[in-house]
Amino acid sequence: MIVKISHSPEIQQFFKEASGFNNDDGSSRMKTVTNRILVDAAKIIEDLEISQDEFWKAVDYLNRLGGRNEAGLLVAGLGLEHFLDLLEDAKDAQIGLTGGTPRTIEGPLYVSGAPIAEGEVRMDDGSEEGVATTMFLQGRVTGPDGKPLAGATVDLWHANTQGNYSYFDKSQSDYNLRRRIVTDESGCYRARSIVPSGYGCSPDGPTQEVLDTLGRHGQRPAHIHFFISAPGHRHLTTQINLAGDKYLWDDFAYATRDGLVGDIHFNDEPEAAQARGVQGRFAEVEFDFQLQKAPALEAEQRSNRPRALQEA
Amino acid sequence: MIVKISHSPEIQQFFKEASGFNNDDGSSRMKTVTNRILVDAAKIIEDLEISQDEFWKAVDYLNRLGGRNEAGLLVAGLGLEHFLDLLEDAKDAQIGLTGGTPRTIEGPLYVSGAPIAEGEVRMDDGSEEGVATTMFLQGRVTGPDGKPLAGATVDLWHANTQGNYSYFDKSQSDYNLRRRIVTDESGCYRARSIVPSGYGCSPDGPTQEVLDTLGRHGQRPAHIHFFISAPGHRHLTTQINLAGDKYLWDDFAYATRDGLVGDIHFNDEPEAAQARGVQGRFAEVEFDFQLQKAPALEAEQRSNRPRALQEA
Repeated sequence: MIVKISHSPEIQQFFKEASGFNNDDGSSRMKTVTNRILVDAAKIIEDLEISQDEFWKAVDYLNRLGGRNEAGLLVAGLGLEHFLDLLEDAKDAQIGLTGGTPRTIEGPLYVSGAPIAEGEVRMDDGSEEGVATTMFLQGRVTGPDGKPLAGATVDLWHANTQGNYSYFDKSQSDYNLRRRIVTDESGCYRARSIVPSGYGCSPDGPTQEVLDTLGRHGQRPAHIHFFISAPGHRHLTTQINLAGDKYLWDDFAYATRDGLVGDIHFNDEPEAAQARGVQGRFAEVEFDFQLQKAPALEAEQRSNRPRALQEA
Repeated sequence: MIVKISHSPEIQQFFKEASGFNNDDGSSRMKTVTNRILVDAAKIIEDLEISQDEFWKAVDYLNRLGGRNEAGLLVAGLGLEHFLDLLEDAKDAQIGLTGGTPRTIEGPLYVSGAPIAEGEVRMDDGSEEGVATTMFLQGRVTGPDGKPLAGATVDLWHANTQGNYSYFDKSQSDYNLRRRIVTDESGCYRARSIVPSGYGCSPDGPTQEVLDTLGRHGQRPAHIHFFISAPGHRHLTTQINLAGDKYLWDDFAYATRDGLVGDIHFNDEPEAAQARGVQGRFAEVEFDFQLQKAPALEAEQRSNRPRALQEA
């Protein structure tokens, strides 16, 4: 028979004490949350008969996870970040707030403070010339009525041909493949960049370690991240996931959603390249975003998730 | 009304997929444990209406917790390590395995491979002479029948006068205040050391950060850690917590237990000091340990918890 004690008044009282219910200091919210986590953790330990070795391996794992700064990657890979999106969708549906471009996960690799451009910008630093395929990306930001939103901020970031992101990949220049573009009077943004490769978890990292034990890969399709914001409209965190990628619907982070698949057209015509001012093959992606009205002022802002900021 | 979706077949199926139930690779045990953690985490998020900001603050906290290697300290401070002891006690009681010196938490500061001595050893490197009070510690290890156990290993470690532990405190010499003593023919161990101070969490560390939000301190009474092992007997992880300390029954890690309080006697007599070969005030602690018979061979060993090992 499985031995269980966590339901007993003594243990319940003990976890209340550990959660600070016996004092008047601190945060009552944190006490409530901590207590719930403790009680549920104790139940898991009992129900699944977690062994001492398993428990301490998990504790050691948490140290290694944080030591590699991969907690954000793990919650994406285990689907919790996607669950948060589904929960937000359900909350929206309940209050009748629907329509527009779907949200999807931010992921852990945003960096604040990217250079701002008006209407149009080049995102890559040219360091992968000859290796990368040039990509011309453009689209329009509209409101719920379909009318263009001039002055909207399109904050976008993506990986290089190795699937790596500047700042986290120190071999790249500051803010490579990261820009903020303010839409022009017709609501348009235009970027010249390079075709990104899909992202893969570090093979020797703690996230991949867990995925391995679950029999899962740690790959994402090629994609482009976006924050879209405009006064009076709801902040949108989303992505374009590129059609044709083998991981498009087998994304370890579950970010691909209907309505977020972007077609990519490769063009090999020399005249077209010349007209674009590039040499050889290039690619074009066109993607429009539709924002919802902000139900409240705070909805215009992204979450206060702690994010990286490039040091000057 | 609180919006909840985690009970829906779609979400349940999603978490099964994220836990690897749709493939035949990996570990079925890990899939089961992961799925339970995901489902319970989703329920907590829904029930307590965890905000985006709260969720991402927690993810960032995990990174900072692991970055400081404090996961082991946090599970002690939140009482989960003590809960594991209580659960082991309950399992023992169910199979009638009682008696002997109580177990208590190991804590995160053990280092494998301390020097081994026969019967008697000096533990401190003399670096705190003039600051520390010399402590003479001795006792006997017996079996369940009360008979002395010769050849038992007493593996003990404690803090210095600053409450710091060698290896983690790089200012101390290797293995300072860490020794293994093999009991003599009468089951006795004897150590000359220094009186330890109580331990306190790093004021700027992530464990203290959580304790602050719970209105709790992060202090432990002065104490001495022990692993006691002997062939045919059950491994014992325990501590002596020193009587008279203001935190004796207000230990942030809940390690103090009935039967684990050690009396410490200070002696200011010059003749007694001379007989002991020391100058000035010294202290004496006497503590006996009684082991249980090992119900199975693996019970003779400590858990496989990942532990630090001093580099040669």
